[in-house]
Amino acid sequence: MEKWDGSAGTSAFHMPEWMIQFADQKQEFNKRPTKISRRSLSRSISQSSTDSYSSAASYTDSSDDETSPRDKQQKNSKGSSDFCVKNIKQAEFGRREIEIAEQEMPALMALRKRAQGEKPLAGAKIVGCTHITAQTAVLMETLGALGAQCRWAACNIYSTLNEVAAALAESGFPVFAWKGESEDDFWWCIDRCVNVEGWQPNMILDDGGDLTHWIYKKYPNMFKKIKGIVEESVTGVHRLYQLSKAGKLCVPAMNVNDSVTKQKFDNLYCCRESILDGLKRTTDMMFGGKQVVVCGYGEVGKGCCAALKAMGSIVYVTEIDPICALQACMDGFRLVKLNEVIRQVDIVITCTGNKNVVTREHLDRMKNSCIVCNMGHSNTEIDVASLRTPELTWERVRSQVDHVIWPDGKRIVLLAEGRLLNLSCSTVPTFVLSITATTQALALIELYNAPEGRYKQDVYLLPKKMDEYVASLHLPTFDAHLTELTDEQAKYLGLNKNGPFKPNYYRY
Amino acid sequence: MEKWDGSAGTSAFHMPEWMIQFADQKQEFNKRPTKISRRSLSRSISQSSTDSYSSAASYTDSSDDETSPRDKQQKNSKGSSDFCVKNIKQAEFGRREIEIAEQEMPALMALRKRAQGEKPLAGAKIVGCTHITAQTAVLMETLGALGAQCRWAACNIYSTLNEVAAALAESGFPVFAWKGESEDDFWWCIDRCVNVEGWQPNMILDDGGDLTHWIYKKYPNMFKKIKGIVEESVTGVHRLYQLSKAGKLCVPAMNVNDSVTKQKFDNLYCCRESILDGLKRTTDMMFGGKQVVVCGYGEVGKGCCAALKAMGSIVYVTEIDPICALQACMDGFRLVKLNEVIRQVDIVITCTGNKNVVTREHLDRMKNSCIVCNMGHSNTEIDVASLRTPELTWERVRSQVDHVIWPDGKRIVLLAEGRLLNLSCSTVPTFVLSITATTQALALIELYNAPEGRYKQDVYLLPKKMDEYVASLHLPTFDAHLTELTDEQAKYLGLNKNGPFKPNYYRY
Amino acid sequence: MEKWDGSAGTSAFHMPEWMIQFADQKQEFNKRPTKISRRSLSRSISQSSTDSYSSAASYTDSSDDETSPRDKQQKNSKGSSDFCVKNIKQAEFGRREIEIAEQEMPALMALRKRAQGEKPLAGAKIVGCTHITAQTAVLMETLGALGAQCRWAACNIYSTLNEVAAALAESGFPVFAWKGESEDDFWWCIDRCVNVEGWQPNMILDDGGDLTHWIYKKYPNMFKKIKGIVEESVTGVHRLYQLSKAGKLCVPAMNVNDSVTKQKFDNLYCCRESILDGLKRTTDMMFGGKQVVVCGYGEVGKGCCAALKAMGSIVYVTEIDPICALQACMDGFRLVKLNEVIRQVDIVITCTGNKNVVTREHLDRMKNSCIVCNMGHSNTEIDVASLRTPELTWERVRSQVDHVIWPDGKRIVLLAEGRLLNLSCSTVPTFVLSITATTQALALIELYNAPEGRYKQDVYLLPKKMDEYVASLHLPTFDAHLTELTDEQAKYLGLNKNGPFKPNYYRY
Amino acid sequence: MEKWDGSAGTSAFHMPEWMIQFADQKQEFNKRPTKISRRSLSRSISQSSTDSYSSAASYTDSSDDETSPRDKQQKNSKGSSDFCVKNIKQAEFGRREIEIAEQEMPALMALRKRAQGEKPLAGAKIVGCTHITAQTAVLMETLGALGAQCRWAACNIYSTLNEVAAALAESGFPVFAWKGESEDDFWWCIDRCVNVEGWQPNMILDDGGDLTHWIYKKYPNMFKKIKGIVEESVTGVHRLYQLSKAGKLCVPAMNVNDSVTKQKFDNLYCCRESILDGLKRTTDMMFGGKQVVVCGYGEVGKGCCAALKAMGSIVYVTEIDPICALQACMDGFRLVKLNEVIRQVDIVITCTGNKNVVTREHLDRMKNSCIVCNMGHSNTEIDVASLRTPELTWERVRSQVDHVIWPDGKRIVLLAEGRLLNLSCSTVPTFVLSITATTQALALIELYNAPEGRYKQDVYLLPKKMDEYVASLHLPTFDAHLTELTDEQAKYLGLNKNGPFKPNYYRY
Repeated sequence: MEKWDGSAGTSAFHMPEWMIQFADQKQEFNKRPTKISRRSLSRSISQSSTDSYSSAASYTDSSDDETSPRDKQQKNSKGSSDFCVKNIKQAEFGRREIEIAEQEMPALMALRKRAQGEKPLAGAKIVGCTHITAQTAVLMETLGALGAQCRWAACNIYSTLNEVAAALAESGFPVFAWKGESEDDFWWCIDRCVNVEGWQPNMILDDGGDLTHWIYKKYPNMFKKIKGIVEESVTGVHRLYQLSKAGKLCVPAMNVNDSVTKQKFDNLYCCRESILDGLKRTTDMMFGGKQVVVCGYGEVGKGCCAALKAMGSIVYVTEIDPICALQACMDGFRLVKLNEVIRQVDIVITCTGNKNVVTREHLDRMKNSCIVCNMGHSNTEIDVASLRTPELTWERVRSQVDHVIWPDGKRIVLLAEGRLLNLSCSTVPTFVLSITATTQALALIELYNAPEGRYKQDVYLLPKKMDEYVASLHLPTFDAHLTELTDEQAKYLGLNKNGPFKPNYYRY
Repeated sequence: MEKWDGSAGTSAFHMPEWMIQFADQKQEFNKRPTKISRRSLSRSISQSSTDSYSSAASYTDSSDDETSPRDKQQKNSKGSSDFCVKNIKQAEFGRREIEIAEQEMPALMALRKRAQGEKPLAGAKIVGCTHITAQTAVLMETLGALGAQCRWAACNIYSTLNEVAAALAESGFPVFAWKGESEDDFWWCIDRCVNVEGWQPNMILDDGGDLTHWIYKKYPNMFKKIKGIVEESVTGVHRLYQLSKAGKLCVPAMNVNDSVTKQKFDNLYCCRESILDGLKRTTDMMFGGKQVVVCGYGEVGKGCCAALKAMGSIVYVTEIDPICALQACMDGFRLVKLNEVIRQVDIVITCTGNKNVVTREHLDRMKNSCIVCNMGHSNTEIDVASLRTPELTWERVRSQVDHVIWPDGKRIVLLAEGRLLNLSCSTVPTFVLSITATTQALALIELYNAPEGRYKQDVYLLPKKMDEYVASLHLPTFDAHLTELTDEQAKYLGLNKNGPFKPNYYRY
Repeated sequence: MEKWDGSAGTSAFHMPEWMIQFADQKQEFNKRPTKISRRSLSRSISQSSTDSYSSAASYTDSSDDETSPRDKQQKNSKGSSDFCVKNIKQAEFGRREIEIAEQEMPALMALRKRAQGEKPLAGAKIVGCTHITAQTAVLMETLGALGAQCRWAACNIYSTLNEVAAALAESGFPVFAWKGESEDDFWWCIDRCVNVEGWQPNMILDDGGDLTHWIYKKYPNMFKKIKGIVEESVTGVHRLYQLSKAGKLCVPAMNVNDSVTKQKFDNLYCCRESILDGLKRTTDMMFGGKQVVVCGYGEVGKGCCAALKAMGSIVYVTEIDPICALQACMDGFRLVKLNEVIRQVDIVITCTGNKNVVTREHLDRMKNSCIVCNMGHSNTEIDVASLRTPELTWERVRSQVDHVIWPDGKRIVLLAEGRLLNLSCSTVPTFVLSITATTQALALIELYNAPEGRYKQDVYLLPKKMDEYVASLHLPTFDAHLTELTDEQAKYLGLNKNGPFKPNYYRY
Repeated sequence: MEKWDGSAGTSAFHMPEWMIQFADQKQEFNKRPTKISRRSLSRSISQSSTDSYSSAASYTDSSDDETSPRDKQQKNSKGSSDFCVKNIKQAEFGRREIEIAEQEMPALMALRKRAQGEKPLAGAKIVGCTHITAQTAVLMETLGALGAQCRWAACNIYSTLNEVAAALAESGFPVFAWKGESEDDFWWCIDRCVNVEGWQPNMILDDGGDLTHWIYKKYPNMFKKIKGIVEESVTGVHRLYQLSKAGKLCVPAMNVNDSVTKQKFDNLYCCRESILDGLKRTTDMMFGGKQVVVCGYGEVGKGCCAALKAMGSIVYVTEIDPICALQACMDGFRLVKLNEVIRQVDIVITCTGNKNVVTREHLDRMKNSCIVCNMGHSNTEIDVASLRTPELTWERVRSQVDHVIWPDGKRIVLLAEGRLLNLSCSTVPTFVLSITATTQALALIELYNAPEGRYKQDVYLLPKKMDEYVASLHLPTFDAHLTELTDEQAKYLGLNKNGPFKPNYYRY
């Protein structure tokens, strides 16, 4: 722990103190109940490996090059060929994307600066499996700056930005990923990350659990050296809890998906913007005066409703939970059953995490030109399969936009075939990804530096103080000035001046 | 439990089932950490016994009658004199107030209806100590209808509505309370409730902990028959946790203060309205264009900020917690230190639960006519004492409004002398009180009917399912229609169709 | 005009220039069409003389004194008895009210300061008939400071604040007004203002047209010396247009009611706040989740809808005008006919300026506890008379709140007996009154100083530049910093750098 | 007039009545002052012919075909070659776009239906010059259905959708337009529309005034047969007022740009959505917490501010007009000079209609990554030319996005090179275009059918009743139900039951 003890002691950085402090509370508060219902599989940016992911366009055209990257011989400018990307020559373009992203990821850049003297990840050998985007690149290069060695694969066969992968490979990161991998490519890439002579990972950063799964299946012995897993996605977290429940989790794991900051940004704040963006880019519709029903009033639903109300839409809400339902009422939305409004609404948005929320029966009753889309979990909420019947005609009118046409001419506008609108049809702001990436970096640091015994073979939530630290690293972006407690006030409140500031059950 | 098992089995009422169900989870989730910081003493409607409470005016003038109620001989129309109120003749007026309140307390009325056959509180002997208002009367009469015998005192020497107390006494409730009790009267009234021949309480409903304290001190043996304590206030809950920590809590206690529904209504939703109401009634100011600084962005601060922003004020926020600070940023408020804006703002509002947030130094720097008020905890947030110096002149311009005048003529408008604006200068909507009262009633039913061993000698949070039940009882007010899960969906989500619908750590 | 030509030449004050400038455009733009429909009689703060006006309470109790002021012999401290008020001894209390008002009427105070050297109203003899409140007092004393002599009566038999009238009388203003005048008193007071030996008015400031009417009827010759009339109310303006149409208007008149600034403040901005205030003070209701129908989407309706939507109400709108209706749609409100929602709403608010918008049939169909109130014009919108039938019981539950009870027990909550809620049950912020008063003062200055021929015997709207000037005088309150055009920009836009900045048909 | 006199007499259509009615008022109210300042040249969707216009993408690739359309021999399926488009074979794709547009242009479709019996434009020979998009096609085909013959050119060399032009040509409309015309092509196309043997236009529909200008210059005699001009753009209207002022306007012209409905939709409602859309599509930024300064608080500025505030941005406003400034204050925005905030803001948006609002000096002081864009008039607001200096580096990072880089590395993100963001980087919703197109159609019908003498050789605003009619035709889209006045109410208000409902100076 000395390496990262911040002995320089600037007032804004109190890590070492809390690293010791929160160890006490952790066992009680941060262990998530092992019995986790599927309900908690609410929306996350991360999806399983086969979801399409179109949030960032590929800027350089490589359509003329049909050779599989696996069959190519490529070297970066330093002569290394320990990578596999689409085209190493695209590195320069990718570098610029990374530089642009750096400007909106102030927290990671701050971590890098702090790490010029000390290297909290010195000796860490991190194998990662995430979307490979400019923002991931900033994370990876930050981990490198903090002392870690990294090897990386993509968690999704479509989501890799080839230029960024090239830039990383050019900088010496062993990256194995390209846009449009086959299923076989996917596992091959992962294997190339872990199955290396003379190098064995001691940390895992996963998004979806595929990497973890692969190691469990193929190289179970590797876990002996692994200090911990950091998992970011709902799906991956679910798999970890299942492992834990089954007594098969043999290292500590950090669930960064459910940290406050990440949840609010991924869901409430991000969806408040992406629902508008996704609908506009696909349909060019006007929001004012439109009648909308939003199914589900969790964080995602709250974000969608707030945005649409602000734009002059008339919003109805459906809910199964009476508490969320009462919140919807108090926020000014009519709480209805879907059937009651299905004939009159212009837009149907699902954000429940449930399945078959919009059924064929509902679809049959919608009015002409009704737009149907999903902001919730996976692609189960709208029963899209029920629309694949002979009497209905599908017409692709734009990328991600289908008209489904009834025999009487009625058209339903189905977006992204029922997959996540915000991933498929809008972009995720770098700032949101910055919060996730910072959380991942801190979780890696914590697990890597934690003294023996602090973490058992279980799944942990991020300590509240770390959550607060992630938040504080992002405040300068807004030129936001935090107030500090006086000694007297801290005593009165029974708080440490550096936090954590709230009990664990605090709801924000 | 048979009495209240809902064998009638209407679809909306699933109590018996959950009464068994949640017993399993309870021990794990509902036990609040025994180490509770004073920070959690955030705002509640309940205050200690000496706070003034002016939310409801007394409608009939009794100023001419200076005799102490303790010295009067009064009988109700049925000949009983087991009560002590200001003037039993005011009963009719109080009855009308109660009837009006009943119309806005649908949940309690629904409970009454359900109880026509079964009496879940049959045999219960409840001693209560709360504010005595029309809404409390509806609660008390509901408890009576559910089978309980009640005796009642006031938890605050100012807050009793004499007419309502009279109406209750007239209906046969032994009530001991009047507006303007002395300290001695206060304890005398409490004692008259518990120290009765031939009657011993087996349930306690407390608000502030004074009743509980009195029994501990004077009649500790009574606890042998007491099945549980239901406590509603922050202060009282704090005292219970202290008892528990000290190993002195000898019966189970239910902390209803921290239930989701109550928290959101008492704080976020209620303050969103009462900040406007309190400022208007005291100052007739216009909100549009005013610069306001809100200290603290918890639920209360969030409510205040949302309301003032909506009315066209320009709102600044101060915070100590980086997570709440980031929320303030994302919600569109400049996060500042108080010093940065203190010279320019028109209004300063405190909602921190902290002390000396606004100091004499701040007050010295405010501009002429600046309004200063407190929506937070107790009366500590503004250092009002620092204004009691010879060079400053105090001028009472209206009830609850003081001008504090500096030697150079600058005036600060201080509201409610720094006490809670929402309690002192606005009213609490009956609907909010309905939620609290329903929560209290359900907590009493649960504790009274719980099988041996379900609750230990500890402090429990309200089971989530009960919280959901309180919410569901209030949905009809809004003509809100809840969606029910299909069997298939419930299975998919791993949920019981009747809830609880969320994991305990869910933040709403 | 020399007196007021601003030769001091501060940059912010350009009056003389525009006084000449706008004379050119005036004849074309400012003449309001002589055919004015009753529709334009939309809401104004001013009402006819018999409306009750309770916006400011009388602070000192004078109930013990039943002698008519007309029968009293009173002298102020300087020995003058040229006034008639309730009680000259209340002067000190009234003075404090005036001082408080001065703090929120920055524009008038600024005019006073400017007038220390020059006296633009020197020689003016103004007879006024308005509500007599602290704000009016600030206006009157400003006119005095600008050089005018004033005599004043009340335009409403209930609205006089006796203490303020006393303070004015004490300062030497001949004021003839008290709260609770009889009809006969009313005209007697007016007559005492104009029928004076050795003094003849040359300017009229009227609010409702009664003073103007009295002079026309009793002293038509007085008009020979009168330079102009400034009229503030809808009703008074309507009467002036009728006079003009009939060819009987023998002096120029200024309609200050329809100036942009006044309209927006009296209607949109003021009602946005007063609807909430009026409902809260009368009913203590909670806004969140309530269903509300607002009849009429003019400025008043827009203000009501915006406020209630922001507080979490679900708002429906009715309209007759398709353009306003489309605005309601785009602003996110369901446009309905009253019949469609009357059974389900919790609150009905009228803001149409029309009559019988809410009929007995509607009232019969409302649900129990529905609140009905009027924010529109006069007391015609709700057919209150139709509720005066034997089968319905009226119960006064508070000041301004009646329960009307149907035979089956259903209660309707009628506020202010259908009169204006904002006047009857809330206060008008001083800031709004400041805008009106400033407009009146500037109109008087303009008419008094206008060169021969600038104004004919017609009704004029306030020149846009004056409207802009009123606005600019109120910006410092908000610490608002106006941008000035560069010479180059002014030339590009074809504008004078000092305004007016918009064509006359601009809609704001 | 018989043709269109609505003798069928459905209740919703009262045209003939008002066509007579409003003739009386028109001369007084609808004549716009001939002296029009350049200030009134505020934003409009229409731009001059050389602005780029990228709101709708061309869906079929025609990059392989480099032949100029003027050199091609094309025939539609009926054998006609009286057109000149890029590629007649793209007609089918264009037809589908038109069909989609029809669904969102309910008013024009309603007009078509009404015209099945009567043909109000029978005999009309309309020459048009507008953007050629799917929405224009719906307008053209509606004019055809109403009886008119049309010939059409594009008003902008970039804005033609080739597929739509092909579809129109295929349906028999003589269309002369393609995307990417040269200046010479532009005039050639216009000439081909008017210079036809055996056909002479009697109506002009213009957007920008180029067509009108061409006829004035080349075929002045044509005006003998022309019944009127309908002009939609700010620029074109300005040119017409100049003609009128110079006494050279020889036919009546209708200014449809300044109608209420069009103004509110083009500016307030449309910009409220397009500012978000334009910023998102170009920068993927997050709005929450961002500091934004909006220059100008007219309709466009109001829309931008409302949207950004709703999304959680902190918005500052600059204004030159004190009335608009006061509105900004009351709406909750800090009113500042640009200099005061230029160092701290994340985004600068201009909506003033002025020039050099953002100067090089401002640009020099902006912080790194500041985004600069224009929602106002033309491309003058930001002094983009000042950035073309050697020490600054321009980097095109995406279509419509430039980074301008200072020697110290600071980057400014300039959108659309200072041209209109909403035109360049977002789409205009069909619904908004529907309102414009309907207004144009009604203006053509009115001018064509007006009896001799109703309109002189002058520029007229659209009669208010027509404006109301346009609005009413769009209400069904929102399932909005208008209330009708009773006879009694209409009499009370002095209104015709069918409108117009407001005096001409009403501000909405």
